[in-house]
Amino acid sequence: MKKVVLGFSGGLDTSYCVKYLTEEKGYEVHSVIVNTGGFTESELKEIEQRAINLGVKSHKTVDAVKSYYDKVIRFLVYGNVLKNNTYPLSVSAERMSQALAIAEYVKEVGADAVAHGSTGAGNDQVRFDMIFHIMIPHAEIITPIRDLKLSREEEITYLRSKGVEVNFEKAMYSINKGIWGTSVGGKETLTSNGMLPESAFPTQLTKHEAEDITLHFEKGELKGINDKTFDHPTDAIIYLQSIAGAFAIGRDIHVGDTIIGIKGRVGFEAAAPMVIIKAHHALEKHVLTKWQLSWKDQLAQFYGNWLHEGQILDPVMRDIEAFLEHSQAHVTGSVNVTLMPYRFQVTGIESKYDLMSSKFGKYGEMNQGWSGDDVRGFSKIFGNQTMIWNQVNEDQQ
Amino acid sequence: MKKVVLGFSGGLDTSYCVKYLTEEKGYEVHSVIVNTGGFTESELKEIEQRAINLGVKSHKTVDAVKSYYDKVIRFLVYGNVLKNNTYPLSVSAERMSQALAIAEYVKEVGADAVAHGSTGAGNDQVRFDMIFHIMIPHAEIITPIRDLKLSREEEITYLRSKGVEVNFEKAMYSINKGIWGTSVGGKETLTSNGMLPESAFPTQLTKHEAEDITLHFEKGELKGINDKTFDHPTDAIIYLQSIAGAFAIGRDIHVGDTIIGIKGRVGFEAAAPMVIIKAHHALEKHVLTKWQLSWKDQLAQFYGNWLHEGQILDPVMRDIEAFLEHSQAHVTGSVNVTLMPYRFQVTGIESKYDLMSSKFGKYGEMNQGWSGDDVRGFSKIFGNQTMIWNQVNEDQQ
Amino acid sequence: MKKVVLGFSGGLDTSYCVKYLTEEKGYEVHSVIVNTGGFTESELKEIEQRAINLGVKSHKTVDAVKSYYDKVIRFLVYGNVLKNNTYPLSVSAERMSQALAIAEYVKEVGADAVAHGSTGAGNDQVRFDMIFHIMIPHAEIITPIRDLKLSREEEITYLRSKGVEVNFEKAMYSINKGIWGTSVGGKETLTSNGMLPESAFPTQLTKHEAEDITLHFEKGELKGINDKTFDHPTDAIIYLQSIAGAFAIGRDIHVGDTIIGIKGRVGFEAAAPMVIIKAHHALEKHVLTKWQLSWKDQLAQFYGNWLHEGQILDPVMRDIEAFLEHSQAHVTGSVNVTLMPYRFQVTGIESKYDLMSSKFGKYGEMNQGWSGDDVRGFSKIFGNQTMIWNQVNEDQQ
Amino acid sequence: MKKVVLGFSGGLDTSYCVKYLTEEKGYEVHSVIVNTGGFTESELKEIEQRAINLGVKSHKTVDAVKSYYDKVIRFLVYGNVLKNNTYPLSVSAERMSQALAIAEYVKEVGADAVAHGSTGAGNDQVRFDMIFHIMIPHAEIITPIRDLKLSREEEITYLRSKGVEVNFEKAMYSINKGIWGTSVGGKETLTSNGMLPESAFPTQLTKHEAEDITLHFEKGELKGINDKTFDHPTDAIIYLQSIAGAFAIGRDIHVGDTIIGIKGRVGFEAAAPMVIIKAHHALEKHVLTKWQLSWKDQLAQFYGNWLHEGQILDPVMRDIEAFLEHSQAHVTGSVNVTLMPYRFQVTGIESKYDLMSSKFGKYGEMNQGWSGDDVRGFSKIFGNQTMIWNQVNEDQQ
Repeated sequence: MKKVVLGFSGGLDTSYCVKYLTEEKGYEVHSVIVNTGGFTESELKEIEQRAINLGVKSHKTVDAVKSYYDKVIRFLVYGNVLKNNTYPLSVSAERMSQALAIAEYVKEVGADAVAHGSTGAGNDQVRFDMIFHIMIPHAEIITPIRDLKLSREEEITYLRSKGVEVNFEKAMYSINKGIWGTSVGGKETLTSNGMLPESAFPTQLTKHEAEDITLHFEKGELKGINDKTFDHPTDAIIYLQSIAGAFAIGRDIHVGDTIIGIKGRVGFEAAAPMVIIKAHHALEKHVLTKWQLSWKDQLAQFYGNWLHEGQILDPVMRDIEAFLEHSQAHVTGSVNVTLMPYRFQVTGIESKYDLMSSKFGKYGEMNQGWSGDDVRGFSKIFGNQTMIWNQVNEDQQ
Repeated sequence: MKKVVLGFSGGLDTSYCVKYLTEEKGYEVHSVIVNTGGFTESELKEIEQRAINLGVKSHKTVDAVKSYYDKVIRFLVYGNVLKNNTYPLSVSAERMSQALAIAEYVKEVGADAVAHGSTGAGNDQVRFDMIFHIMIPHAEIITPIRDLKLSREEEITYLRSKGVEVNFEKAMYSINKGIWGTSVGGKETLTSNGMLPESAFPTQLTKHEAEDITLHFEKGELKGINDKTFDHPTDAIIYLQSIAGAFAIGRDIHVGDTIIGIKGRVGFEAAAPMVIIKAHHALEKHVLTKWQLSWKDQLAQFYGNWLHEGQILDPVMRDIEAFLEHSQAHVTGSVNVTLMPYRFQVTGIESKYDLMSSKFGKYGEMNQGWSGDDVRGFSKIFGNQTMIWNQVNEDQQ
Repeated sequence: MKKVVLGFSGGLDTSYCVKYLTEEKGYEVHSVIVNTGGFTESELKEIEQRAINLGVKSHKTVDAVKSYYDKVIRFLVYGNVLKNNTYPLSVSAERMSQALAIAEYVKEVGADAVAHGSTGAGNDQVRFDMIFHIMIPHAEIITPIRDLKLSREEEITYLRSKGVEVNFEKAMYSINKGIWGTSVGGKETLTSNGMLPESAFPTQLTKHEAEDITLHFEKGELKGINDKTFDHPTDAIIYLQSIAGAFAIGRDIHVGDTIIGIKGRVGFEAAAPMVIIKAHHALEKHVLTKWQLSWKDQLAQFYGNWLHEGQILDPVMRDIEAFLEHSQAHVTGSVNVTLMPYRFQVTGIESKYDLMSSKFGKYGEMNQGWSGDDVRGFSKIFGNQTMIWNQVNEDQQ
Repeated sequence: MKKVVLGFSGGLDTSYCVKYLTEEKGYEVHSVIVNTGGFTESELKEIEQRAINLGVKSHKTVDAVKSYYDKVIRFLVYGNVLKNNTYPLSVSAERMSQALAIAEYVKEVGADAVAHGSTGAGNDQVRFDMIFHIMIPHAEIITPIRDLKLSREEEITYLRSKGVEVNFEKAMYSINKGIWGTSVGGKETLTSNGMLPESAFPTQLTKHEAEDITLHFEKGELKGINDKTFDHPTDAIIYLQSIAGAFAIGRDIHVGDTIIGIKGRVGFEAAAPMVIIKAHHALEKHVLTKWQLSWKDQLAQFYGNWLHEGQILDPVMRDIEAFLEHSQAHVTGSVNVTLMPYRFQVTGIESKYDLMSSKFGKYGEMNQGWSGDDVRGFSKIFGNQTMIWNQVNEDQQ
């Protein structure tokens, strides 16, 4: 009997897949769910039970939170990655982590095939297909939902015919939650106009008084908040989310290019990611040189886009990570942030590597290291080529 | 008698320069002030009177608001330029405009020299020096404040000795205002830590109820707001500032690299620029292709940095402007924005050039233009090189 | 009866297509050949006759040499485009021109379908498919050779069975000729090792004495050679090819990434393109500023790669062309080149826009425009940030 | 008595400096020469003797060949760095190495000052000034030649008056030799037109028969040639130079931007560097992915330019080096090169990491990994956004 590993979320589509793969296709189904921070223990248990009830041969829960951070989020922080200057790549990033874990599981189980529940309309199908094609090229990739183009009703009818009577209500807003942010889709995001209503966001505003916090970074990684230190940055992220989320910070709508060429719009809330990225960037502005900042930006913009398009396994990503990691050697220090309802303000930093050192002259004040004459000479030479250009071309006009 | 053109703001430093150039150096002083949107009519009149009282041979007021927009701001909007992802370049941009206008005036007057009141500690000295060196290389550049390194007290004493009894009180916060934003410096910005107090900002919060506005762009330029249309985008900017400023929007602190290599920190408020840039960018995300967005970002980051460093006359800037202008052909449409105290939200756009057209498939829904099989093929080919890389290198391990 | 437009070269594959489309598929076949400089008048006549003999409903010859230059080659010269620093994109560029012309012809004829003879193994299939999908999305794209995977023998057998008795011998080297270079494929290029033999190149070495020539550029375009001027740059290219080709210049092997992810290797000879690009670049080094050269390089590298991948219709290409065209305003002057067997040397330029003007100081000699003190000041300020970085970080070690 | 370290080459200028610093300025002079591959043992001995004869307190010879490779050349190879696509940065690179070694020596000796013999007309003054300003900010920088603007005759007269009777004839061509190439300046390079005569090049053509060689790279470094292996890549470079130099390979004229804004032109011969870079690049084209090649190019172009401008100590250079080094993990294999008089041809490569693996389909031949249908789907999706753009905008016209 041929084995298939199925990425299973417990929803209608992947429930359908279990039955379809087992009964119509004759596969031994091994379901797997990869938790990237979006599920509680009890939710995971419930999903496991659901898989077993549907008749899988085995079900596996992979806790990928830390590896997701180590392999992906870490570099998104180093690079201050916000796609189109807005979106922390919450979903794109976690799909990579999930696909990698599923592919590993396929190898472990020795499966002949791998199945995912993506439709034919979005980015995820490409991400799963591609990672599987690269890592497990000999495994067949099965995508029943994409191939059969069934409606929800057809899927429910089929499941009922197989004795499955779970209640699959369609939520008004489709939510995807992970440690690096939560996406929110709904009727407002299907068109180019309209903001999600307050109620659509899973995390609601519950704090109203401004709160000052201090984030402690070591070599670019969040290692402490206020007087707490953490074993792993993911613990810091979760803690920060619990504080900042209550201010309803980090909500926005992202408009972006899908891998398949159409434009898409999606809401999100990402309190911790937004605070971390902005705080980290503020620290970098103090400790990195001008060209470090500039090249980091260019490389990180590409890194984010290429990750978004599912290309995490291109070896150029490892090369860029080497650059980014190296650039973080002195990104150590504290960043002060004031949290307020719906917004926050980075108010300053402290770092032993701060280049805005009072020893070397303050902006707007005279200093000892160089003289006005030095700057006069600098200005002349710095503008020399354009001066020559101007003279040469004036002569020609 | 040798003529000098002096950039004159009416403050202590340039007042000192008038007397010093006339009486110590024997120059015929022609003062000039270039208004880039920071002065009212009556302020300009007062400055003129002050110049005359100090004994200049002539005083000239140049209204550069529109030329500032046409030559500089326009491209900052096309490029969504925010230095270090934060600062709309308010001061850097207007210095360019002022230096260009002064250099033109030097030619017009036929002066032998040009003087500016910059100190030896900041960016402005380089910007003025360099533009003058390029445009009027034969004019001597005189910078009394930088060269003599006088204290405020010494300057006041000198002026008094010449019978000048104006009151030059030092403000707690140094403010530089222009149509593209207002900078605010103070004791908090001299160190790496600390936010400017609410009271330091010239524009105070006076509106508390959210307000929806619609911005109309034509080929990348703001041409209308709600049901008003404007003759020139500068009129639209001024009008928007009057609406959005009252929400205390667009305040932040910028940490950046000065041209002379030290780090500097400065507060700013820029309600209209921030709303315009974010709205413009949102519209672009709907009407431009992925690579248009990506290349615009790269070129605009350089454009902003190079402008900041005073290099507006490098011909590469004209080449980049040609790119940016061409990219705006379809950046036409309306953008909806909700203004709230201290923040705003872009809520959607409408454009006949919107690529998120429902005709071609919505994100997350199936579509007619292509099939799941097409995407399956795409994914395979799109990941092909990395698949090969993986196989080749697996064999070698 | 449904109409199909068929790109027809007169070779075995497209001859097969005529018969197959007519007799097996019942199409009315309208063949078209787009000349991008690779065919003589008599060759085109012979191809037309062959099409008619095979039974096409109509045959059309499109002379695309000038439009190929105007739309594509011109920008490759402006950008000094050599893929992977080697290959002038001879074939990639002309496929674009051909696909565009065929798509226009499909519209003109009002055809229901378009057919091309590409196999499933190379770049051309993607280029044709994609241009057709973009420009004529409602036309069916038919690719018999790719779909049926026939061997040469099967095709010949089929054609014989239909009474076609043309002699289709397989050449030892497959040659693709156009005005921007000739590609040469053979058994040596199918592996990673081995150079094409001298005899594989269509143009043989016939001149042995060094020859000095002068190329005249106007705004980046080749307008004259020695004392000859030309109506259109394509005439200059053809003339230069006749001179330089005889030196067997511009031969090399290109190793590159195909659109479909595999690596490919192909020989080429491109005497005129190589001489033009190197001469044009030399002139630019004299008349453009440092940052113009740098940004042109970056944009042109992308432009060439994106063109190679068939993406000429992405609007970002028009934006880049605007940059490139603008950058050529002063690329006017003469370039001296010495041609020798198998190689050439650019020996100098003359231009009224030459920034290496003796008026402003020669490299290695003192000058009047600035002093050693100016440079001393420059050096100090230019290295300031790194000096501060060094001091700050020394303190921390 | 104050100590000065003087960079000493034995030529007229630095000989003048010894006497001037000792007798006019009262310094204790410690001369130092840093050999980057341009001097033989006996030349170094002679220079030492000359220094002692001139009356230095001490003289030091630093052998920097290996450290020059380890800190600089290595990365120029990884990045295939050719400035303006022509020049291997022979002189720029070695100046960095020399300045770093001199600054270290200043620390070692505990000198109060450092002196160099640069004039005020070129790049070297900036490079030395800047490295010294950064590494030894408290040392005074003394540049007698730049400051006193003496003619050769004045220097000779002064030296004679001090009893120095060395013969300082001016060579027709000024030569600067190092392991990474030799620059040649002369009257032909002072203008924009004219090639150096054959006789100006130090290495003359002595081999006329083509010779095949094989270069062995390990992780991007040249470790063997033909059947010889080498302890250190510098030994391989020297050996290759002895073979390839005899073919008069790697001669050209470089036109470039000096740090001080003027354009300069200089001839060079660099047989080994050119063969190594082209061979290394050929290997990379086979083993790196498309985006690795592309990003390497962009980073390396900047790296070369920034190095040329003396900015080797900017920490961004270390970050880029991390990228470049990481990218070389699989750049291991052999490259075949045919050397001929004045030119060479890379004829192929062999590498276990070759991505042009016959297992995954040859260019131009069908393959098993994917089908024509896959490519058809790919083409559709790959062109999707431009198709939509075209449709949307056609509707608007």
